[in-house]
Amino acid sequence: MQFVLVPPSNMHRHFGSLLSGAVGADVTFEVAGDMFAAHRCVLAARSSVFMAELFGPMKEKAMNCIEIKDMEASVFEAMLHFIYTDTMPDIDQEDAFVITHHLLVAADRYDLERLKLICEDKLCMCIDTSTVVTTLALAERHGCQGLKKACFELLKSPSHLKTVMATEGFDLLLASCPSLIKELLAKVAPCP
Amino acid sequence: MQFVLVPPSNMHRHFGSLLSGAVGADVTFEVAGDMFAAHRCVLAARSSVFMAELFGPMKEKAMNCIEIKDMEASVFEAMLHFIYTDTMPDIDQEDAFVITHHLLVAADRYDLERLKLICEDKLCMCIDTSTVVTTLALAERHGCQGLKKACFELLKSPSHLKTVMATEGFDLLLASCPSLIKELLAKVAPCP
Repeated sequence: MQFVLVPPSNMHRHFGSLLSGAVGADVTFEVAGDMFAAHRCVLAARSSVFMAELFGPMKEKAMNCIEIKDMEASVFEAMLHFIYTDTMPDIDQEDAFVITHHLLVAADRYDLERLKLICEDKLCMCIDTSTVVTTLALAERHGCQGLKKACFELLKSPSHLKTVMATEGFDLLLASCPSLIKELLAKVAPCP
Repeated sequence: MQFVLVPPSNMHRHFGSLLSGAVGADVTFEVAGDMFAAHRCVLAARSSVFMAELFGPMKEKAMNCIEIKDMEASVFEAMLHFIYTDTMPDIDQEDAFVITHHLLVAADRYDLERLKLICEDKLCMCIDTSTVVTTLALAERHGCQGLKKACFELLKSPSHLKTVMATEGFDLLLASCPSLIKELLAKVAPCP
């Protein structure tokens, strides 16, 4: 007989409340004009990059307010949400592709391996002839093998490939990542 | 086709490393002579009692070293492990009953509801004629309804009840918690 029901882990909820309440926050980030309060030890526990920045020999260690460059505030906010809760925040469907794209870049920058894989997985669902070139370039730049495979899978279809090759984006990819196009060629060519 | 495999949450591992490494620890507890370094914001995120003690108007707020009274060091250590990882530490089988008993008391003291339920659940497995009196007293003192039910379930067997009633512990329970014995009587009496 079951006398006691043990509920599932509530750690993500507890740390989510810590983030939103900001009790005991000991560092502030300025991101594109917005300010975000956070807890050094939580960031360091979750990201080796924050560990090095906040507790290592880098100059950020002594700073109470750290400016984050080259990132949108909404992306930093989503990344903080993930760091504290280990879950993705709700993202508007129409912004999902762009935000997830930027969140993957942020995850790679801060060594958040699991967030990176979640973003890869979400971007796999967004691949079509209009997004595949951007996605392939992203996957190549950030070493996302699964996402790259998913892009190649779409391009294996001759009709999709024809549509994509007619775009300006494809020419840009050809110029910027010729090795990627070579790899694509090997994939789509019929076996000898 | 599945291109990306997202691993399960690794938050408990990350915070477990934060605890063992003690990087950025900002409070120390002295428990029966042993010292434990911890992070105020993690404790506060997980326990409303630590939140009040460490960030509220209580005197502990300004202290860097806090003495914990009436607790064994091994129990405090196990509680810290749970706070950081949301999992129970490995406990030697022979000490399991005693440690889990004390851990339930600690969980109640620090408002760690999920740890309390995990301990209740484990103690349900330890109930026999030699442990049922101690367990019933514990369940009554800390408001553990499930554990209490499990104890009554064992005592519904007339032979178990007879064995238990012959012990000194039962007489002590009768003296200290007469209402509990009344409740027991109502449970074991045949329906009229």
